[in-house]
Amino acid sequence: MTPAAGLLDTPGRAAPSLSTAGLHASLSDPALTSMTLLNEITGAYPDAVSFAAGRPYEEYFDSEALHRHLRLFTRYLETERGMDRRQVRRTLFQYGATKGIVGDLIVRHLLLDEGITADAADVLVTTGCQEAMVLVLRALRRDARDVVLAAAPTYVGFTGAARLTETRVLPVPEGPAGLDPAAVGRAADEARAAGLRPRALYVVPDFSNPGGARMPEAARRELLRVADAHDLLVVEDNPYSMFHDGSGRPPTLKSLDRSGRVVYIGSFAKTAYPGARIGYVVAGQQVAEGGTLTDQLAKLKSMLTLNTSSVAQAAIGGLLLENGCSMERACAREAAVYRRNLRAVLDGLAARFPRGGPVGWNAPEGGLFAVVTVPFTADEAALEESAERFGVLWTPMYHFYAGSGGLNQIRLSFSVLTETDIAEGLDRLRAFVAARTP
Amino acid sequence: MTPAAGLLDTPGRAAPSLSTAGLHASLSDPALTSMTLLNEITGAYPDAVSFAAGRPYEEYFDSEALHRHLRLFTRYLETERGMDRRQVRRTLFQYGATKGIVGDLIVRHLLLDEGITADAADVLVTTGCQEAMVLVLRALRRDARDVVLAAAPTYVGFTGAARLTETRVLPVPEGPAGLDPAAVGRAADEARAAGLRPRALYVVPDFSNPGGARMPEAARRELLRVADAHDLLVVEDNPYSMFHDGSGRPPTLKSLDRSGRVVYIGSFAKTAYPGARIGYVVAGQQVAEGGTLTDQLAKLKSMLTLNTSSVAQAAIGGLLLENGCSMERACAREAAVYRRNLRAVLDGLAARFPRGGPVGWNAPEGGLFAVVTVPFTADEAALEESAERFGVLWTPMYHFYAGSGGLNQIRLSFSVLTETDIAEGLDRLRAFVAARTP
Repeated sequence: MTPAAGLLDTPGRAAPSLSTAGLHASLSDPALTSMTLLNEITGAYPDAVSFAAGRPYEEYFDSEALHRHLRLFTRYLETERGMDRRQVRRTLFQYGATKGIVGDLIVRHLLLDEGITADAADVLVTTGCQEAMVLVLRALRRDARDVVLAAAPTYVGFTGAARLTETRVLPVPEGPAGLDPAAVGRAADEARAAGLRPRALYVVPDFSNPGGARMPEAARRELLRVADAHDLLVVEDNPYSMFHDGSGRPPTLKSLDRSGRVVYIGSFAKTAYPGARIGYVVAGQQVAEGGTLTDQLAKLKSMLTLNTSSVAQAAIGGLLLENGCSMERACAREAAVYRRNLRAVLDGLAARFPRGGPVGWNAPEGGLFAVVTVPFTADEAALEESAERFGVLWTPMYHFYAGSGGLNQIRLSFSVLTETDIAEGLDRLRAFVAARTP
Repeated sequence: MTPAAGLLDTPGRAAPSLSTAGLHASLSDPALTSMTLLNEITGAYPDAVSFAAGRPYEEYFDSEALHRHLRLFTRYLETERGMDRRQVRRTLFQYGATKGIVGDLIVRHLLLDEGITADAADVLVTTGCQEAMVLVLRALRRDARDVVLAAAPTYVGFTGAARLTETRVLPVPEGPAGLDPAAVGRAADEARAAGLRPRALYVVPDFSNPGGARMPEAARRELLRVADAHDLLVVEDNPYSMFHDGSGRPPTLKSLDRSGRVVYIGSFAKTAYPGARIGYVVAGQQVAEGGTLTDQLAKLKSMLTLNTSSVAQAAIGGLLLENGCSMERACAREAAVYRRNLRAVLDGLAARFPRGGPVGWNAPEGGLFAVVTVPFTADEAALEESAERFGVLWTPMYHFYAGSGGLNQIRLSFSVLTETDIAEGLDRLRAFVAARTP
């Protein structure tokens, strides 16, 4: 017996050879690996005041409410949907409809809170809005010529979904008043001139993460005109619209949409809680061969996660029922915290940095984020120094620009902090900025 | 103002133009569109005896157990993991670790039930095993040269995951004793000779769906040798090993694996219930740049679904705790039903079709499926006639061969039926086959 044959006679002697160079390109994408580094830095300073975490306020989380919501949903299945106990158990525990089991409650919520009229058959419940983004991109990206436009700075979850589906993203700069519709039209024209097929525009019109911009109503209407003229879908992602400063709300793009341009993505991660992982997409657009884009997305979902957890859907369903399907009502306490914290951050910045000085900031009318401009490069090295020497964490903005800007900007997230934390954190930030300012 | 400009002044007049020809190719894949047709046919005959549904037995589903399990898991977080109430609430409701919150309980289950030693850090909890398959394929498929081998007939969920990730699947025929390891080696050689990179083999060694084969232990050991020799990963998908006929169980591939060839995919959909959507993947293989394949899969998951629902994980965690982490214990009643039904189907076939006649069938030693060979083409038209005229539903096998066979085979799924249903269904099947036999 030769040594080689002898080796082969012993199972499991040859370890597999794996390297990231041989794995999917998204795994070595600079934007995404730097996010991992970022998480490591923030994780290494647990005692710092953190303006880095993009998590919702958690003091109102309630374990007993989970049980109450599950029972409410079960009773609703029996009374409103006329199910017997066996059908209820099947709905909770068996494989189910790909589109989910809370579409009709989501439809009530959309009408009540967002002025959106939708059909339950056009709602696909997803494992968070992250899956919804992946499904939309997977559907639209047939080959390398299919590209999407996205407001820049761009939510990193959308960038990730694009990398995963190998979809090229063309950035359209977003200003303090959000996207300029004319710039969207120009970007679509340029893409077509380059032989590409711009399929959709991704935008968070209400308090984008990280930019914080909110589009005025006139710009929303103009954006829909541009979408018509350039045959673009508009993917409206709306996790934050309820967290406004009390000054009123412009209508969602979807509620203004008359031709079916808007694919609407919603999430309960911020208005209810992230642990359910319940999001959804509304895509009632007709497809030539019959059915809707939602039907096509549901087919893709059956290959991706099959169903969204019905246990988790039932929990969110019960929460909707308890609040008469108004998420504005469900998250009123959290919204008040965010409003208070936004005020504390903006007032706190004004009290610490002179107007017209080297440090500037935006003035979002809501949301969970503010952006500060600093007179130095705000990268991981700066963050590490800020954390180690000054005990304050934040997020470098350049992550959200995919290499096209933001190098002297930082994002302040204030959703999980107290007013005392914010004051202390801003004091530390001032000290850090002073030490770095030339 | 020109008419065109007038049109553009009114938002929402131009409906978007969408057709499946412009959407992702998986959406017009023949294998997957025929599965949709199949679901439509079976859905149209609710009163037929259905051997078509691949769902687990549902009479033991228990709504109150869900509440009990959630409380058990909460108590475990407090007592065994030493969390205070606030940390418990955060664990249930906040964004969490990408790898999930029940990895340590899954590790106990794997050791107890499957003889598998794993580290909790190597377990990635997923939204059902469907997401696990997508993640593994997305990681391994860097470009069009990366292909996977799969036992044929192939589970349709794997075929879907492959279409979604644009991964080419090379079939390796599976016989009554499962895969022939030598055929796997030959397929890998042929792929390499054709300039392809065979990355992995997908196999369900215990009662594959639909073939029902179970690999003997010697073949399992040989398969690991072949994997070593050909530098293949082996993706072992194990939803059914516990549903054996009582004659004992060969070891899992993963428990025999000494070199880290096996990526193990598990699911609670059949041993607990599908509505949780909890599956997992164990991929402790080292990656050259550091960390494990599980770490890389977790990065991909953060772009796909971010987290697995922690509410759903808590429900399954509590179920594990209630059963001392033995899923064999948790699903003992269901396993008894499946054993009884397998016997009823095999005995029932023997009682109705003469040995050596034109109708044959396999003799699986467990699982939820049997395969019957018939002397005619068993396609959708045949199914429609079977449903309409004879009141019995089944699944055409050719779906699982991607066009390479199975045209005169049907799959009988017996997991949700009573013995009375089975007897009646087989009577109807006999009448249908008699009418069709030349």
